[in-house]
Amino acid sequence: MNIYFAGSIRGEAPDRAWFQALIGRIGRHGRVLTEHSFGYSPEDEAQFDDNWIYKTDMGWLRQADALVAEVTAPSFGVGYEIAKAEEWGKPVLLLYRLREGRKPSAMLHGNKGLEMVKFTDEAEALDAVDRFLAQLTGLARDA
Amino acid sequence: MNIYFAGSIRGEAPDRAWFQALIGRIGRHGRVLTEHSFGYSPEDEAQFDDNWIYKTDMGWLRQADALVAEVTAPSFGVGYEIAKAEEWGKPVLLLYRLREGRKPSAMLHGNKGLEMVKFTDEAEALDAVDRFLAQLTGLARDA
Repeated sequence: MNIYFAGSIRGEAPDRAWFQALIGRIGRHGRVLTEHSFGYSPEDEAQFDDNWIYKTDMGWLRQADALVAEVTAPSFGVGYEIAKAEEWGKPVLLLYRLREGRKPSAMLHGNKGLEMVKFTDEAEALDAVDRFLAQLTGLARDA
Repeated sequence: MNIYFAGSIRGEAPDRAWFQALIGRIGRHGRVLTEHSFGYSPEDEAQFDDNWIYKTDMGWLRQADALVAEVTAPSFGVGYEIAKAEEWGKPVLLLYRLREGRKPSAMLHGNKGLEMVKFTDEAEALDAVDRFLAQLTGLARDA
């Protein structure tokens, strides 16, 4: 199974350690196509050509069997990718960390076609990843 | 002409006075469908039902002849709306304020199908709005 993991890179400051923990957990279920996108320093990442990033990411998303998106730190790219995944009929799991004084995106949270797991404890989010991907693997096996 | 204006609401802190200036300028060319979305305090906005916001905004975007998006402060919803506008064949103008130490979204800036105007002086962005919408009005008149 090929899984596209999406999270803020140039948007609001991402939680890099948490993203690595998520990538590790997703990787138990298949190949994380975007794994290396989250391994660069902001300075190194800024050197890449934006059209190359766009084309590479869209290529990976087309190949992906599912999208897992961390939707705590706001990001245009992640919002864009969620819409594309929906357009292309890919299963989507959204993970949102509850924070005092903030609310999740209305456009994501209000879309009944998208599953959003709101967590306080990271174990809840990791369990949701396992359930989501195990179900897809099971569906693929039964098909 | 119906125009959908998009900008961060719950994402990274928006520049409210600048958004109002943009809405005023866009309004010279037609109806700004989302005008009132930017008139609420964060506390009042948070009281709306997210599914209502999602359905209302998607309805307006479907009706719109064009999308003008302010893409400086990161936002999932704006990224999502840009992808939908592209999917539905709506003309899109992106406005990005150049800032020291930040780069525009790679997914937006790297997409050659989207026009992004990068500005330092607000007058440049307002002029870009006039050119973009005047051209659409001209095309509609000639059709």
